[in-house]
Amino acid sequence: MSYRDPLNTNTRILMGPGPSNVHPRVLKAMSTPLVGHLDPQFLEVMDDIKVMLQKTLQTKNHLTFAVSAPGSAGMETCLVNLLEPGDEALVCVNGVFGNRISDIVERCGAKVVRVDAPWGEPVDPEQVKEALRNRSPKLVAVVHAETSTGVLQPLEPLSELAHRAGALFVVDAVTSFCGTEIKMDEWQIDALYSGTQKCLSAPPGLSPVSFSERAIKVLKERKTRVQSWFLDLTMVKNYWQGAKRAYHHTAPVSAMFALREALQLVMEEGLEKRFMRHKQNHELLRDGLQALGFGFLVKPEFRLPMLNSVVLPSWLEEVEVRKRLLEAYDIEIGGGLGDLAGKIWRIGLMGESSTKNHVNMLLSALKTMIEDSPSAITKSLKHA
Amino acid sequence: MSYRDPLNTNTRILMGPGPSNVHPRVLKAMSTPLVGHLDPQFLEVMDDIKVMLQKTLQTKNHLTFAVSAPGSAGMETCLVNLLEPGDEALVCVNGVFGNRISDIVERCGAKVVRVDAPWGEPVDPEQVKEALRNRSPKLVAVVHAETSTGVLQPLEPLSELAHRAGALFVVDAVTSFCGTEIKMDEWQIDALYSGTQKCLSAPPGLSPVSFSERAIKVLKERKTRVQSWFLDLTMVKNYWQGAKRAYHHTAPVSAMFALREALQLVMEEGLEKRFMRHKQNHELLRDGLQALGFGFLVKPEFRLPMLNSVVLPSWLEEVEVRKRLLEAYDIEIGGGLGDLAGKIWRIGLMGESSTKNHVNMLLSALKTMIEDSPSAITKSLKHA
Repeated sequence: MSYRDPLNTNTRILMGPGPSNVHPRVLKAMSTPLVGHLDPQFLEVMDDIKVMLQKTLQTKNHLTFAVSAPGSAGMETCLVNLLEPGDEALVCVNGVFGNRISDIVERCGAKVVRVDAPWGEPVDPEQVKEALRNRSPKLVAVVHAETSTGVLQPLEPLSELAHRAGALFVVDAVTSFCGTEIKMDEWQIDALYSGTQKCLSAPPGLSPVSFSERAIKVLKERKTRVQSWFLDLTMVKNYWQGAKRAYHHTAPVSAMFALREALQLVMEEGLEKRFMRHKQNHELLRDGLQALGFGFLVKPEFRLPMLNSVVLPSWLEEVEVRKRLLEAYDIEIGGGLGDLAGKIWRIGLMGESSTKNHVNMLLSALKTMIEDSPSAITKSLKHA
Repeated sequence: MSYRDPLNTNTRILMGPGPSNVHPRVLKAMSTPLVGHLDPQFLEVMDDIKVMLQKTLQTKNHLTFAVSAPGSAGMETCLVNLLEPGDEALVCVNGVFGNRISDIVERCGAKVVRVDAPWGEPVDPEQVKEALRNRSPKLVAVVHAETSTGVLQPLEPLSELAHRAGALFVVDAVTSFCGTEIKMDEWQIDALYSGTQKCLSAPPGLSPVSFSERAIKVLKERKTRVQSWFLDLTMVKNYWQGAKRAYHHTAPVSAMFALREALQLVMEEGLEKRFMRHKQNHELLRDGLQALGFGFLVKPEFRLPMLNSVVLPSWLEEVEVRKRLLEAYDIEIGGGLGDLAGKIWRIGLMGESSTKNHVNMLLSALKTMIEDSPSAITKSLKHA
């Protein structure tokens, strides 16, 4: 393909760690002619997004909106606004994204206190309790659904510990958002960021976020300026709320159209039904994979429904299989990250990608490969 | 409109300071089903974008790509990567965006040396020369096309002064990109950021950037980490180039499809022809507006072709006219910012919005309003 050629991509089945497949209604919404970023009609779109984000996050938080950049920028938004140089933050780390939080905390000039857990396990509240003894950090941060390992972190015990220590409770909900329950208010989460390209099934590029009154108080009492202009909530909030909207940056209009449509699809399906669909398709995949000889990295009670970290049989040439899945079946699945590279696959069943048909397609393709061309995908035979 | 209703926006004629109207081919490209952000087919899309950005910026710079967020994030990318705490930066300020540069420089912990010019005038190279006497700042930053005032800043004299002082030359090309000539290599620009939603006529949400070898050397010799994780070029570059692409963040896949298509349209038209079109439509608008009694803020030789800052007749109820233009004609134009609010309009003729028909539509609408309902749009009559 030359840069002069028309765009000519395959129709992929997206079963990796995101982006997931996008509903035709969302794709169509993006082809809507643009309106200005301060057009009264666009401000209505922003208001609609805010209302639907509040509903999907089960929160009344006034400061609920979408950062005009992907999930990592949402993470950075939460941290640069709540931390100041010299602050202390307790970060729970059991995968790539916990590490990323820790990295950004340091870049804020704050001190990190880490509570680590092995990759594939949740963080132990007892260890967090221990680490908080005689400490009063500004915030406690944790990843709800660790996309690098497939672990679901129970949030309520950590929230209680954080608040007892006088800390804000910050949650990464990039992969859990719209795929499993998040009760932002009931669980007393103070700052939360998420992504659009996982269980919401909108294109990547925006990061829904929400902040509690406690978090806003911390923001208001800052002694230093937020180190990022683009992510500075003291200004961004005046674009998203208030009687007179103030220009800050030019919002990604088309992506917001898509976000609105994707949120509508979630509301139409209903949260409970959507979470159940994610759970049931996970179970279908799990049973099929186990029958083919695959294992799971994570204990059943902490497994994510939308991101399956699958332990590979030792004989499998995993890179070759993923290549064949993509080239011959147009199915994308994800490899492992860091120490888990070559040892696990990350199979996403997110949003529109979470269907019985997709599970069956993947299982059938794997079965066919194993039965029809074992030599090509088997280590021992290949290297014999 | 309730959040439950289908998206129902008007078809606007976008003649404000951006976004501009988007070509149907670009809208259609966005409705392409997604591929993964590490899919070999997506990496090809990224390569195509890089090649076309190099051509449109007239540069061979290897590090040329699109930041996954709007132009303001592109501005921040250039500054946080090139500046370290304690550095000095000379910033030319003659409008909102020069001010924004100055603001971000401070947030980097660097010292700002400002050279100010009145809003509506270019920055005087003699003053820059004077300010650089006995100084060797890390960089000199300037806005090529100041969207808040409509001023085109000649870049070559400032580039020479910057380099003579041992500084990098950093340029804001958000509004000039694809609407007037930018010779990045010949003019020895070291770091440049732009936007997609102005003369390129792609939706807002991405910021094309490019860095010279001199800038990359400065980046490599940093003593401290870049304060933003999301914008840290030492990591982002490994996603955009090299044999093995490393995951950094999830790129906005659909927006990149749109960017590729919009760049193709620019290549098909040809840069010279495109710049001429912008110039000619500006002249058509200028003549028509002057006949109606409007003036221009900027001297002819420094006027932007794509952003016309129009001085309003003293009798005009400008907010009312803009409201009527939007509601009765679906035409969006921009008001003034800061001290220029109420005194000027900012009329954009950018990319797809720069057509003879759009100019004629706007002039006819204004003429009709002035002739048919003078009392509603005239200050003296209204308040009499």
